Amino acid sequence: MNPTIELLKSHRSIRKFTEQKIPHELLVELIRAGQGAATSSHVQAYSVIHVTKPGNRETLAELAGGQGYVAGASDFLVFCADMKRPTEAAERTGANVVRGMTEQLLVASIDVALMAQNVAIAAESEGLGICYIGGIRNNPAAVSDLLRLPKHVYPVFGMCLGYPAQDPDIKPRLPVEAVLKEDTYCDDREQVEAFDATMRAYYQARKGGNKDANWSQNLTPLFDSKLRAHMRDFLIERGFEMK
Amino acid sequence: MNPTIELLKSHRSIRKFTEQKIPHELLVELIRAGQGAATSSHVQAYSVIHVTKPGNRETLAELAGGQGYVAGASDFLVFCADMKRPTEAAERTGANVVRGMTEQLLVASIDVALMAQNVAIAAESEGLGICYIGGIRNNPAAVSDLLRLPKHVYPVFGMCLGYPAQDPDIKPRLPVEAVLKEDTYCDDREQVEAFDATMRAYYQARKGGNKDANWSQNLTPLFDSKLRAHMRDFLIERGFEMK
Repeated sequence: MNPTIELLKSHRSIRKFTEQKIPHELLVELIRAGQGAATSSHVQAYSVIHVTKPGNRETLAELAGGQGYVAGASDFLVFCADMKRPTEAAERTGANVVRGMTEQLLVASIDVALMAQNVAIAAESEGLGICYIGGIRNNPAAVSDLLRLPKHVYPVFGMCLGYPAQDPDIKPRLPVEAVLKEDTYCDDREQVEAFDATMRAYYQARKGGNKDANWSQNLTPLFDSKLRAHMRDFLIERGFEMK
Repeated sequence: MNPTIELLKSHRSIRKFTEQKIPHELLVELIRAGQGAATSSHVQAYSVIHVTKPGNRETLAELAGGQGYVAGASDFLVFCADMKRPTEAAERTGANVVRGMTEQLLVASIDVALMAQNVAIAAESEGLGICYIGGIRNNPAAVSDLLRLPKHVYPVFGMCLGYPAQDPDIKPRLPVEAVLKEDTYCDDREQVEAFDATMRAYYQARKGGNKDANWSQNLTPLFDSKLRAHMRDFLIERGFEMK
């Protein structure tokens, strides 16, 4: 396989970084690479907040659930779904704009995800490490206040970037046969069971942690409670009414 | 900049393909590269339907709004947000699973977008062309029936893949100054106006089409009606209740 595919397959989240700073020109180049991603109907429904103030970085680290690397990484970006820019642009041409559609929430959330993934790959291609921070959705209203996000913009996830000071293993993924299905959806319980065995062996080979866990067991905390139950009301309040 | 960043910045949607077929082993490798993307809490909330039956390809081309390249490309993939697999896996371990949270819709939609973008980049790194097909959300219920998608799985977008038979220009993107903001959100109307001029010049330099259009004007059809207003009810019916 070619080096780009090798790169794509070698991603691991990096949570420890050296003191070395990313040159600002490189950071800008990463964003440009991000903008190269496909965008639904050219809408480019995203904005990225580059958080530079140390106090704000500390606050975000706390808001994200005490993730110290949010403060310690060379750079921290908050990727936002932005429906303010395109809807106001359309309005200025005289369009009678409808907002708050569920489809618009999807378009903006997907647009920013495609863009961010390009940023991640560009960063990794330059030897940087990254870590997505979904934890900013723990307290999205406080994050929005801190970054002064206007209505019709919401923070989707953050990203730490920096020069790696650790070299973690690549975490196994589901068997490709579970994910790739021919023509129709089919059950993949057998592959999940095989993957549970893979993950149990993976955890047993590593120091620390719950050595008896597997993938299915680790999913429990995601689903046995109303995780981030505030998201619905938060999005409605920000103008993403899911109409 | 390095070749990977050059690749990321050189994306264009490809809608005309040669007759050459993508080897199946390469397609599988693209999906593996996709699986290398970050995934929220390792949930891997996605499935990809590889649509091989010519009749189904024709039907999908129609359902997507008469996009012939959906039928004509070497391969067509439907990327699905899949909350069935992880929630059922958690249930089998005895978890009392909560479904239908808005957060879960976001997690699954973002997970599949990150994964698909890796597939897109892997494909382009091998000289293939791709085109995302958001048009499958024009008729998501019919698409779901055709692909026999179960509850808690929804089709997010499709992707055409094949060997390019066209060499379109790279479409300009918003000025990076509009997208990348320092510390707090700030207005970007000035950059939007500059971009409108860029896009007008871009359209004027191309044959055909509305040569007087700019970016802001082109956004009107996205927002001046309730585009894909069915998405809310569709998602609820599929078990993504946005609670």
